[in-house]
Amino acid sequence: MTKKPDAVVVAGVGMMPVGEHWDLSLRQLALEAISAARLDSGGLRPQALYVANMLSPALSGQSHLGPLLADFAGMRGVEASTIEASGASGGVAVRQAYLALMSGAIDVALVLGVEKVTDKGSSQVQAALATATDAEYEAVQGVTPSTQAALLMQRYFYEYGPPEDSLAGFSITAHLNAVTNPDAMFRKAIRREQYASAPIVSEPLNTFDVAPLADGAAALVLARAAALPDGQEYPQVEIVGSATATSALALHDRPDPLDLTAAAQSAQTALMQAELSPEDIGLFELHDSFSIFAALSLEAAGFAERGKGWKLAQNGDISLTGHIPIGTFGGSKARGDPGGATGIYQLVEASRQLQGRANENQVPDAATAMTQCLGGSGATASTHILRRVT
Amino acid sequence: MTKKPDAVVVAGVGMMPVGEHWDLSLRQLALEAISAARLDSGGLRPQALYVANMLSPALSGQSHLGPLLADFAGMRGVEASTIEASGASGGVAVRQAYLALMSGAIDVALVLGVEKVTDKGSSQVQAALATATDAEYEAVQGVTPSTQAALLMQRYFYEYGPPEDSLAGFSITAHLNAVTNPDAMFRKAIRREQYASAPIVSEPLNTFDVAPLADGAAALVLARAAALPDGQEYPQVEIVGSATATSALALHDRPDPLDLTAAAQSAQTALMQAELSPEDIGLFELHDSFSIFAALSLEAAGFAERGKGWKLAQNGDISLTGHIPIGTFGGSKARGDPGGATGIYQLVEASRQLQGRANENQVPDAATAMTQCLGGSGATASTHILRRVT
Repeated sequence: MTKKPDAVVVAGVGMMPVGEHWDLSLRQLALEAISAARLDSGGLRPQALYVANMLSPALSGQSHLGPLLADFAGMRGVEASTIEASGASGGVAVRQAYLALMSGAIDVALVLGVEKVTDKGSSQVQAALATATDAEYEAVQGVTPSTQAALLMQRYFYEYGPPEDSLAGFSITAHLNAVTNPDAMFRKAIRREQYASAPIVSEPLNTFDVAPLADGAAALVLARAAALPDGQEYPQVEIVGSATATSALALHDRPDPLDLTAAAQSAQTALMQAELSPEDIGLFELHDSFSIFAALSLEAAGFAERGKGWKLAQNGDISLTGHIPIGTFGGSKARGDPGGATGIYQLVEASRQLQGRANENQVPDAATAMTQCLGGSGATASTHILRRVT
Repeated sequence: MTKKPDAVVVAGVGMMPVGEHWDLSLRQLALEAISAARLDSGGLRPQALYVANMLSPALSGQSHLGPLLADFAGMRGVEASTIEASGASGGVAVRQAYLALMSGAIDVALVLGVEKVTDKGSSQVQAALATATDAEYEAVQGVTPSTQAALLMQRYFYEYGPPEDSLAGFSITAHLNAVTNPDAMFRKAIRREQYASAPIVSEPLNTFDVAPLADGAAALVLARAAALPDGQEYPQVEIVGSATATSALALHDRPDPLDLTAAAQSAQTALMQAELSPEDIGLFELHDSFSIFAALSLEAAGFAERGKGWKLAQNGDISLTGHIPIGTFGGSKARGDPGGATGIYQLVEASRQLQGRANENQVPDAATAMTQCLGGSGATASTHILRRVT
């Protein structure tokens, strides 16, 4: 397959381990990821910076990240902007960079996802996260992303009646994949009995259903294929599908809360662009900030029937050698949850898989990947499809 | 002149008066502006929503505006995102919508700017605004946008030595233009003596140097010219130049703080795209959140030499019949300052001028317009050039 002149390719990737980076501020985290991605791209000069972030104004007192981070990372003057779509910020930022490249206005873009959350206490973090729900109808009643996930989980069990520990497989697989990822936050396998006896966060959600929100930064250099110098070190990865969709923000405004319509719509659109169907996808980096979303995303994206996503976690289907591997480096659950930067981590990890540089976490023969990040319990969903070209 | 197939045109505009809208929440303000713009477009269906906002997470406890406002305004499901670049958010959002349209991925986009600030007290608003400065080096020392403007104004007087009331003309002209704008916040002409005796906000900045931050919402329907039905009611307005640039965020990091390099760079790029020079521009909607920025923007965009922007406000050059009219409906100073929505108001007003529907504020024979909004004392600048086509 030859590269099309108007294709957008991943020219470089970089990321910091997700974790408690007490010694690094937000801008320092960003710099590390940007520098790594630029080095990986062989020194391409980005003409625009897209920053994905959801929590900096509330937790770091810093908005207006575009010029700050462009300057701090040695790109003073470039076009820069900050994109916010809650947990989907990363995917939405990639989508906007993709469109800018496709327009022909720029040849090289840098997309950064960054969050710094560990400087503040849990109550401040929860309050900041709650702003992504409907402030006038949900947050004002005490709703947070965790309680939304708990409500959806309750509903899932009520509607479909799966076994009590049916979501355990998602957590177990994520932790297993993280064991061999030296950058993962929790490199410890867990057993089904541990899941069953884990403390409850919000009935029926337990601690192993919840991904650990922590500091992180990841960066992508995206480029028009025509602008890429010859002699790239790694196989080329092309973005062949890119779509964002939304649904009602408040859960009570959704006709069927278990139907993630934005996830379904963005996945369908991206697959159509790529001229692929779910069976063609080699791995799926989905948004497992809560285990229930892993099940719902698999269903919405077409990998399982409604109510049956949990079954893929029972029999190895989602493991590295299964038919639809997910969270291949541990996912948000065990690699760590970088909030609005999640979408960038997903594309970095998917690219590494397609380029054959996933080391012990390599999915054999991965040639296509889907990434999908969710914001506000699925009110925003952004889906990308990557394909190895060379 | 015939429309080019790949041109982006302003297909509809709508806005709420800037002011203290005690009876309207953020989403209601947004709905009013969106509905007006969609009606004005003859019912075009937007495929994507770009929201420009800087203060909602801090002042309304509401982030993730994309899906919320898409849904509330009757566009549930469309691609949506929120763009933040402090006071330049509006222009940066227009730029991203423009690129999405130019990529061919969508035919119709809605760009909304919205701010709701009057629900909170002054200290909360000032704290929220300060997040747009460098949090670690400026805000932590008590720096706010007002004190930054005061520092720049001091420096301007120190470097160039203009008369003490040399910036008065900007405020006087803005208030004069607002008298005939029924939607303006302050419809009262002011005299030079009033400026001279106005209370000081931050030495040497006085109350008439500062624009009144208030609630507002404005919306644009942008479309690819090829997607527009025939028989439009008003002359067609095309975006012929679009550029965003940045500089260092902190004032102390700028080699020459009076040189708004991002404003200059974005203006030059936009002019080059439009194949125009400053002399060709019929009116200039600039960012007069503080009077010093009116002078600095005129200089940066090429309408005056360095240190001489203030002179344009002395002799009528910036009035509606002058050679470079600015703030034609009263500008931020007297129409009211809608924060991150400013860039959208600028494009709405410039479009109305070019379409000949500015009523008593009409600039005679206006055929081209430049809009420029600034964020963080010019750390981000976004410039657009509009031209009447039919």
